[in-house]
Amino acid sequence: MSSIFTKIINREIPAYIVAEDDNYLAFLDVSPLQKGHTLVIPKNETDFIFDVNDDELSGLIVFAKQVAKKINAAFECNRVGMTVIGLEVPHAHIHLIPINKMEDMMFNSPKLMLTKEVFLEIQTKIVNQ
Amino acid sequence: MSSIFTKIINREIPAYIVAEDDNYLAFLDVSPLQKGHTLVIPKNETDFIFDVNDDELSGLIVFAKQVAKKINAAFECNRVGMTVIGLEVPHAHIHLIPINKMEDMMFNSPKLMLTKEVFLEIQTKIVNQ
Repeated sequence: MSSIFTKIINREIPAYIVAEDDNYLAFLDVSPLQKGHTLVIPKNETDFIFDVNDDELSGLIVFAKQVAKKINAAFECNRVGMTVIGLEVPHAHIHLIPINKMEDMMFNSPKLMLTKEVFLEIQTKIVNQ
Repeated sequence: MSSIFTKIINREIPAYIVAEDDNYLAFLDVSPLQKGHTLVIPKNETDFIFDVNDDELSGLIVFAKQVAKKINAAFECNRVGMTVIGLEVPHAHIHLIPINKMEDMMFNSPKLMLTKEVFLEIQTKIVNQ
């Protein structure tokens, strides 16, 4: 069965996509820690990031860097932090999170509840960088 | 002035090094969240990971993958999680942390206090994989 992320790639499930090329996709996390919290994935479905082959992994991090620069420009933040946990969805994914302090990227913090309008606004802000 | 990590690269400060090549270095975090918590750095001193150039960044993630596989083999863990926060030491670094649950990589948790003997034991365990 396809992962939920493969369904997003195939447009079977909607998502707030902020960047895409032939091999990679970036879209807003719907349970974000911060506004601008984005997931970056390879289109090939591989369970965990360190099982992705070297070429694809290299492409993934360079793609994530480009997305991080857009997030950084779109939001006032000190850094765009990066995390891979990988215990939930079995499709490699990198979290990119705009942060000003370490606590801003703690996954045990409550997630933000945002309206569709706010997600669309964030998406537009990142895409337009 | 050189970063503390450049001083480790130059052997001006001791560290429990677990992997090294011409461009990258991996050593145990001395304030670890879990046994086996490791830092991976490029030898070129660049403040933040997304300012590292594409080739060097690609090499860094592939090097980190190799180190993560050793950590995974050395410790019973579900995953080796990866995090970049980058608010403290101004020299790009990736945290690799053996985890069984999401809470195992929360940076607001208390750090482990380990003796020199335990650090040496962990170092040997990873190096020998």
